[in-house]
Amino acid sequence: MASLEIVTIGTELLLGHLVDTNSAFVASALADIGVDVYAKHSVGDNPQRLEAMLRGALDRADGVITTGGLGPTVDDLTKEAVSAATGTRLELHQPSLEAIEARFAMMGRTMSENNRRQAMLPVPGVVLENPHGTAPGFVALREDGKFVAGMPGVPREMHAMMIEKLVPWLLERFGLRQTITARTIHTIGIPESELDRRIEDLFRKLENPKIAVLAHGGRCDVKIMAKAETREAALALIAPVERDVRERIGYGIYGVDDQTIESAIVDVLKRRKATIATAESCTGGAISDALVRVPGASAVFRGGVVAYSDDVKRSLLDVPAQTLRDHGSVSVETAIAMARGARRRLGADIAIATTGVAGPTGGTEEKPVGLVWFALVADGEPRTYRATFPGDRRDVRARATMAALSAIWRYLERADTSVPITPFMAEAKR
Amino acid sequence: MASLEIVTIGTELLLGHLVDTNSAFVASALADIGVDVYAKHSVGDNPQRLEAMLRGALDRADGVITTGGLGPTVDDLTKEAVSAATGTRLELHQPSLEAIEARFAMMGRTMSENNRRQAMLPVPGVVLENPHGTAPGFVALREDGKFVAGMPGVPREMHAMMIEKLVPWLLERFGLRQTITARTIHTIGIPESELDRRIEDLFRKLENPKIAVLAHGGRCDVKIMAKAETREAALALIAPVERDVRERIGYGIYGVDDQTIESAIVDVLKRRKATIATAESCTGGAISDALVRVPGASAVFRGGVVAYSDDVKRSLLDVPAQTLRDHGSVSVETAIAMARGARRRLGADIAIATTGVAGPTGGTEEKPVGLVWFALVADGEPRTYRATFPGDRRDVRARATMAALSAIWRYLERADTSVPITPFMAEAKR
Repeated sequence: MASLEIVTIGTELLLGHLVDTNSAFVASALADIGVDVYAKHSVGDNPQRLEAMLRGALDRADGVITTGGLGPTVDDLTKEAVSAATGTRLELHQPSLEAIEARFAMMGRTMSENNRRQAMLPVPGVVLENPHGTAPGFVALREDGKFVAGMPGVPREMHAMMIEKLVPWLLERFGLRQTITARTIHTIGIPESELDRRIEDLFRKLENPKIAVLAHGGRCDVKIMAKAETREAALALIAPVERDVRERIGYGIYGVDDQTIESAIVDVLKRRKATIATAESCTGGAISDALVRVPGASAVFRGGVVAYSDDVKRSLLDVPAQTLRDHGSVSVETAIAMARGARRRLGADIAIATTGVAGPTGGTEEKPVGLVWFALVADGEPRTYRATFPGDRRDVRARATMAALSAIWRYLERADTSVPITPFMAEAKR
Repeated sequence: MASLEIVTIGTELLLGHLVDTNSAFVASALADIGVDVYAKHSVGDNPQRLEAMLRGALDRADGVITTGGLGPTVDDLTKEAVSAATGTRLELHQPSLEAIEARFAMMGRTMSENNRRQAMLPVPGVVLENPHGTAPGFVALREDGKFVAGMPGVPREMHAMMIEKLVPWLLERFGLRQTITARTIHTIGIPESELDRRIEDLFRKLENPKIAVLAHGGRCDVKIMAKAETREAALALIAPVERDVRERIGYGIYGVDDQTIESAIVDVLKRRKATIATAESCTGGAISDALVRVPGASAVFRGGVVAYSDDVKRSLLDVPAQTLRDHGSVSVETAIAMARGARRRLGADIAIATTGVAGPTGGTEEKPVGLVWFALVADGEPRTYRATFPGDRRDVRARATMAALSAIWRYLERADTSVPITPFMAEAKR
């Protein structure tokens, strides 16, 4: 089986200025075609260390895929190091130079001398065209058949180049037929250790498909991965394991694969032909933003009011001045009034409201930073939740947004409410 | 100078299921105390490869910092590999076991047998307490003085452990006094190659401080990094270079360091004692979410309406039915009416509106996917912009949000409008 290593290049990665999303994208694309990734590395814009790392990776693996260091700025030194590690030479590639010139002409910009350097490419090698930017990519071919591929660090450019140019080249190079296919089951409200307990024997027993548990922020994913010659054959291996896992997990599965909690909500609402509206204070539009993220949300999402000031709570959501005076803006009474106002004003079947203290200031002993009230209003009695989230402003707002989405999903699925949505939140009966 | 390498552990990292944010956090914390990071690596839950990688890193560097692989799930095998690479043994650490038991008791959960394993720690070594989770961290000490530190993979737990436990230990271990201090100047609307041209000679000439250019989505950062014994001394080295860089860049700087475009907006509004409101269609609450992200936004942000359906555009923003009929919801006329409605209804000095086709469906020849209209209304004539953004729904929405924030900032700063905010957007005169 073909095995590669990934090297992302840029001093900013080692200084922590930038989170490396490129290596995850490349890794995922390689997993899809059944190429093993042994390891990923990041190095700075240091030609000696980069060269040493490339040599080491070429010793262990069949090839290396790099991203970054192809831009026109003066700190980009990737190609020199690749050339040294693979014993290739850099030559001007006339069609690439013309493509770069044409791109600058089209955008009405002057081409700088630095941009010319982007057309210097390793020989012997393969040129990977860049339809979305100036820097072409390449594969530098070493005499022994191993190789180093180079792609730009700009995600948009790299993604297209990886999928359209490099993946086809790799498939041919390795004569690949085998694919790895994965199904991910998303759960909410089940602690990681509990989930692990329920599937531990499967984890130990199974080889193909394999199982992994991934925890993130109150949610856990169970990933089932199978290797086979075709995607269909892999899915056939996965199906019985998925049935087994689903039975063991029972309650709490909100979706699979690309499905998010917000897409699950939009799906259920569509099925029920119901509509939703939001009334947000501390979450500031993050709940509506999540719903609008889902393609086709317009069929079920009416809109929302971000009622960040008390005036707006009164004027656009009809929260009585008396309620705000008696209970304050962060209270269950205000949350209910906000949700009722949004439901009526926006003409929705269901409305959710949030009001809380996101911090860093504004907390009191009675209403500390992290306190958030939620109200979900449909026909019948409102459902209300009180949470005290740990962390800073960003944490509190992110947790509150996720908790609100979870509460909506549970309501729609009429799911068991004895399990708390998060350890920090409880249903509050008045 | 002390040098370390970082290893993040987890098969999910090599399959691209998860973006590695931990290594960026660790790298950034190390940069702050003047520890060089030679390289970062990710390996799967494979004890042999992990051990080989740790041995290699210990050859090159003074120590290794790892994250991940300490959880209770059965695929976590980090400690065995660390023990082998450092020649330490794993022993039950009674205080850690008691802390784990107490944590489970507090949360009213049953402790599983797997959780006991989390209290097995390397000897000789140092225990790093975990105030935010069950798994304690550790430093395994090799005979020659080199070490491997292990921290949990859960970001919240790891962040606290790194800052509160591991950084103090490293400072003492290396007798560190030197710090690296950086200032980042954020610009908008200047192409990377142009920025590079203006500062290229500084980049070549300077050693301490050093300069780097980082580009991301229409914005470029110029980072100035200095090494010195104290933060103050480093800042003194940076100051003259920053002045020089600012002169060369001229127009387009919206902030430094942690300042975001949204925090710059909140700052200017506070200074001017002015308020803002939003009226969002395709951006769906992302603009208001960005503003609310800023601590203290409540002083200037009145609130917003996410008018995702035409009904809501009419009822909450007073967009005339005639306007929607004659020009459609995606039109400059509707954008202006939305902004005017938000300004009046929410009682703000300034309002911004967005309406567009985010896709994937809903595009026509006349109004393709990616078309977004913006209107900014204050006293006087509205400013309007028309953009056609490339990419998918997520790209279009993200670009539209950033463009709207940029338009607000420019308006507030009365900045030169001859330079386009993004290559995809132009001011539209009616």
